[in-house]
Amino acid sequence: MTTHIPALIIDSVGAPFRQGLIERRELRPDDVRIDIAFAGICHSDIHTVREEWGPCIFPIVTGHEIAGVVAEVGSEVTKYAVGDHVGVGCLVDSCGECDMCVKGSENFCERGAVGTYNAKNYDGEVAQGGYSQQIVVSERFVLRVPDSIPLEQAAPLLCAGITMYTPLKRWGAGPGKSVGIIGMGGLGHMGVKIAAAMGADVTVISQTMSKEADGREFGAVDYRATAESTVYKDLRGTFDLIVCTVSSELPLDKYLGMVKPFGALVLVGLPPEPQQLAVWSLIGGDKVLTGSNIGGIPITQEMLDFCAKHQIAATVETISADQVAEAYDRVVDSKVRYRFVIDTSTIVPE
Amino acid sequence: MTTHIPALIIDSVGAPFRQGLIERRELRPDDVRIDIAFAGICHSDIHTVREEWGPCIFPIVTGHEIAGVVAEVGSEVTKYAVGDHVGVGCLVDSCGECDMCVKGSENFCERGAVGTYNAKNYDGEVAQGGYSQQIVVSERFVLRVPDSIPLEQAAPLLCAGITMYTPLKRWGAGPGKSVGIIGMGGLGHMGVKIAAAMGADVTVISQTMSKEADGREFGAVDYRATAESTVYKDLRGTFDLIVCTVSSELPLDKYLGMVKPFGALVLVGLPPEPQQLAVWSLIGGDKVLTGSNIGGIPITQEMLDFCAKHQIAATVETISADQVAEAYDRVVDSKVRYRFVIDTSTIVPE
Repeated sequence: MTTHIPALIIDSVGAPFRQGLIERRELRPDDVRIDIAFAGICHSDIHTVREEWGPCIFPIVTGHEIAGVVAEVGSEVTKYAVGDHVGVGCLVDSCGECDMCVKGSENFCERGAVGTYNAKNYDGEVAQGGYSQQIVVSERFVLRVPDSIPLEQAAPLLCAGITMYTPLKRWGAGPGKSVGIIGMGGLGHMGVKIAAAMGADVTVISQTMSKEADGREFGAVDYRATAESTVYKDLRGTFDLIVCTVSSELPLDKYLGMVKPFGALVLVGLPPEPQQLAVWSLIGGDKVLTGSNIGGIPITQEMLDFCAKHQIAATVETISADQVAEAYDRVVDSKVRYRFVIDTSTIVPE
Repeated sequence: MTTHIPALIIDSVGAPFRQGLIERRELRPDDVRIDIAFAGICHSDIHTVREEWGPCIFPIVTGHEIAGVVAEVGSEVTKYAVGDHVGVGCLVDSCGECDMCVKGSENFCERGAVGTYNAKNYDGEVAQGGYSQQIVVSERFVLRVPDSIPLEQAAPLLCAGITMYTPLKRWGAGPGKSVGIIGMGGLGHMGVKIAAAMGADVTVISQTMSKEADGREFGAVDYRATAESTVYKDLRGTFDLIVCTVSSELPLDKYLGMVKPFGALVLVGLPPEPQQLAVWSLIGGDKVLTGSNIGGIPITQEMLDFCAKHQIAATVETISADQVAEAYDRVVDSKVRYRFVIDTSTIVPE
């Protein structure tokens, strides 16, 4: 059992991917060693290594959409056994004791949850992510991937899936509810599938009609393009809930105009610049503007089980390690249908 | 029974109040004629006559915080009898048939609810408000004022009270919850009283400490001034719910910083200019930013009954008709403790 693991490494800002080796810690009593099969590419990975969201700890291995098979378990592990299909998402530790942790919202741990990469564990060890062949994680942050979901389609659920499931559940997507999904990329396509599986009437609002056929296949009953100048007027007061996955400048007042009284607009995309908002857009209908940031461990497991029950998962393009740089450019250009996953077996250290 | 009623009239934008006569319609079968005893002065009245919110229908009689006694009832009225203590708030009609009306949210009637003033009834009649000695209103828009609440203290509940009650109820003010009230004017002082009566721990956040004694008497357990530069840092992550009554420029990111994860910031003040917001302020804690606009008839009655049960009402300064112009200036200068009500018996047509 070596602790030197093949991984896709970036050594400094702007540097290319390097196929090298990283260390993983020896198992603690509560740790699970996972043989990673697939790692999804999330736009967050790109923002991070390009330092668009702030300083990055280099060298870095990104990836927080991780699916694989349990290879070894620590002496006190009770939930998992060798051979289990499992996943790891955006978090690998939290204090476990604060109000947020106790109620299963580890993502808002008061001490600060430990991210899967570009973060330090509480003991100072740098956390490295999923573009690698193994990871060691406390069982508290390991999810069970139902056997019916192929691992490559499961990986993106660990970030894109939970990012959409949490607000759809909190804000009541379900039968009789009209749900709009703005943007149909990696997040949006999961939003359509999950909201439709919840029983809602789903409308995709995209820049163009180019992905309409896919949207309808994923479960949407309507598909609209913002390139058509009348769309905001046509859809005025239509939705109980809109989840917006766009991270560029947001016409919040127009979006809120499409929401019914008491309805909600949830932002899951993160534009870097401050946005403008007319307060009347909220007051004129007791409307909610909110954000949603992944989810805690219990709701992430619930999401995986929901996806298995409803036979949905991510629509992916599986790529090899030497295609990741190109894939990053395609993600930035919105030219992926709908999530890249890296086959980590193709990582071969130089 | 005359239909020419003494009222405080403004004939054009910038004109002074004139004590004159207005017409009230003959009773329809569902109408109630109310002898108005007191009418509260709401900041909305001032915005309207000064055309700060758009065009105003002149001549106008403002006032949508109305309390009085039933003088006469139409042939089909069932809920009220002569002598009953009643109130009228911001609405005097709605379609009664749309989804919003059916569920008691007449304030968001899809046809458009009819406001108490600066509005036209569906038949084209101009609605005139409460700074007058009588009003005629369909019983559907008449509220019962519990006998234990003096009419002059009840009048402001019809707008200020319901404006605060609705969001405090919707967003869960109650035992174990920490509630911040920003601004302690006409709205804010009712927010403190209602939230405290609901069992919440209430903190007032005001510009200065000048009203601290009153705030604590109204039920606040803490009182902070934004003039102290550390207040936003000191209160970071403190509140389950904040209701903001301020209508000037809003530091939304600072306010949201004081909200706990999953908590809500509710805006009930309406700044005329668009406001700025960093999306991370919402996403970094799944926080809610919302607005709240009075309430429908059922929740308004619920609020009045709640206030009676908890022995709370507005803290008022009762004034005569010839003091209203001066009162408007004091409202704009935040120099009222805490709501003016006009004794309408002092209106004497010239």
